[in-house]
Amino acid sequence: MKKKNKDLPVILITNDDDITSKGIRSLVEAVKDLGKVIVVAPDKPQSGMGHAITIGSPLRMNKVNLFGEIEAWQTSGTPVDCVKLAVDKILHRKPDICLSGINHGANHSINVIYSGTMSAAMEAAIEGIPSIGFSLMDYKYDADFEASKGIVRKMVQYVLGLKNPDKHLLLNVNIPAVAANKIKGIKVCKQAYAKYDEEFHERIDPQGKKYYWLTGEFKNYDKAKDTDVWALKHNYVSVVPVQFDLTNYTLKKQLEKQLF
Amino acid sequence: MKKKNKDLPVILITNDDDITSKGIRSLVEAVKDLGKVIVVAPDKPQSGMGHAITIGSPLRMNKVNLFGEIEAWQTSGTPVDCVKLAVDKILHRKPDICLSGINHGANHSINVIYSGTMSAAMEAAIEGIPSIGFSLMDYKYDADFEASKGIVRKMVQYVLGLKNPDKHLLLNVNIPAVAANKIKGIKVCKQAYAKYDEEFHERIDPQGKKYYWLTGEFKNYDKAKDTDVWALKHNYVSVVPVQFDLTNYTLKKQLEKQLF
Repeated sequence: MKKKNKDLPVILITNDDDITSKGIRSLVEAVKDLGKVIVVAPDKPQSGMGHAITIGSPLRMNKVNLFGEIEAWQTSGTPVDCVKLAVDKILHRKPDICLSGINHGANHSINVIYSGTMSAAMEAAIEGIPSIGFSLMDYKYDADFEASKGIVRKMVQYVLGLKNPDKHLLLNVNIPAVAANKIKGIKVCKQAYAKYDEEFHERIDPQGKKYYWLTGEFKNYDKAKDTDVWALKHNYVSVVPVQFDLTNYTLKKQLEKQLF
Repeated sequence: MKKKNKDLPVILITNDDDITSKGIRSLVEAVKDLGKVIVVAPDKPQSGMGHAITIGSPLRMNKVNLFGEIEAWQTSGTPVDCVKLAVDKILHRKPDICLSGINHGANHSINVIYSGTMSAAMEAAIEGIPSIGFSLMDYKYDADFEASKGIVRKMVQYVLGLKNPDKHLLLNVNIPAVAANKIKGIKVCKQAYAKYDEEFHERIDPQGKKYYWLTGEFKNYDKAKDTDVWALKHNYVSVVPVQFDLTNYTLKKQLEKQLF
C-alpha cells in the first residue's frame, strides 16, 4: 500500500545557481520519491552570495511549472531569502529536511563561507531544520550529475532515518567529478584551511576608466589528511558537519585571562 | 620625537553601512593617531550582505576625499570585496590590522553570520590579518558614537600591543547604546543562540502583484549568562572571539562512528 502523502517527510529544495540549473533538477530527481518535495529557489544565479539577505528592497515570488507535479517557486531573493520565504509564506511550517544544490562547483574548505548553496542550508539549520548542502566539483553548465544522484539519495536516506536527529544538523557534502565506480567512498572530514589567493585583473573600459575582475588561484595550506580537500583529491565524497556557533572557545578562554 | 611613518602599523578600515556613514567616520577618528590609516569601503549601503563576493560582474573603485589627510577609496563591491581590493590593489600588502564598522546597529548572536561588517573582518582574518568588527546597538543614521570611540581605542590598542597575536584573531565587539559612564565594562562572551523570527509582510503593488518585505522579531533562546546578548542587556560591551573553521567537531566524532 502506498504511504499516505501526509506521512511523507516534507523536503524543501533550494540552490544558488538558479531554479533552471541542471544541478537542482538532478537533486529533485534523486529524492522525489523519498518525501513530499517542494522547490523554492532563486530566479537568477546567486553564486558567492554567502549569507546575504534582502533588507532594503522587497521580494517577489512566482509559482513555476518546471518539475512536473512538484510544486516549485522562483523568488527574486538570495538563497537565504528563499528558505525564509519557503517557511513563512509557502509551506507555513518547517520542512522535515532542507536540501541545497546540487551546486555546479565545489564548496569545500573555506568556500563554505562564500557559498550561497551552503548558506541556504545553514539558514535552515539555524531555524532547526536538519539540512544538507550538495556540491559537485564541476562548474560546467551541463555537468554530469549521475554519480551524484546516488550519493545524494544515500545521504538523505541516512538523515531521514535518524531517530533523534540534531535539529541543527548541517552537512556540507562535496562530490568528486568522476564516474560512480571511481568514487572510493564517503569520508567524514573537517573543513580544510584552503582558499583562493585572490588577484584582481585590471582592465580599461571604452571610456578609459579602470575596472576589476576578481580571479584567484586555489591553494591548500592544510597538511592534515582528515580534510575535505584531501578526501576529494583522493576521490572520496567529503562530508563536513557544519556549525553556526562561530565562537572561538579556545581564544575565549585565553582572552578571559588576558583582556583587561 | 614623532614616530616615523614607516614604523606605524597599517590600519585598514572598512564597513558595510557605506563610506559616508557616521559610524566609519567615528572609527577613523578614534584610531587615526594609532597608525597609518587607510579607508576602503562600499559606495552604498551593504547591510545584510553576509560574506557575499562579486563574481559575475567587475568592480569599480575611486579615491575620495572624505577624511582629510587619510587616504580613502570607495568601491562598488561588498564589504568582503573591499578587503580583497584593499590588499591586492591599494595597499599591495596585508595591513597590520583590519577594523570594520562602527556598524549602525547590533551584530551580536546569530547576526554575525548575516553582517557585512563582520564578514569584512572575517575576510581579513582568513587572510591572516588580525581583525575587529565594531557595532553600536543603535540603528539611527545620526547615532551617538562618542562612548564607542573610547571602547574602540581600548580594543585596538590591546590587539596592536599583543606580542604574538594569533594571525587569524577575529573579535566581534558590540557596544550598548548608553552614555560612557553607564557602560559597566567589557565582557568576553560566546555567541548567543538568539535570532530574528521572520515574518514577511505581504503587500500588493499598483499593478496588483504581490511583494514581500522581510521583517522579524528578535528572540533570545539562550539562557546562558556568558553570551553577548546577556552582556549587552546588562550594559556591558560584548567581545566574542570568532572563528571561520565551521567544522562541528562533536558531530564529526559521532558521524565517524555512525555514518556507513
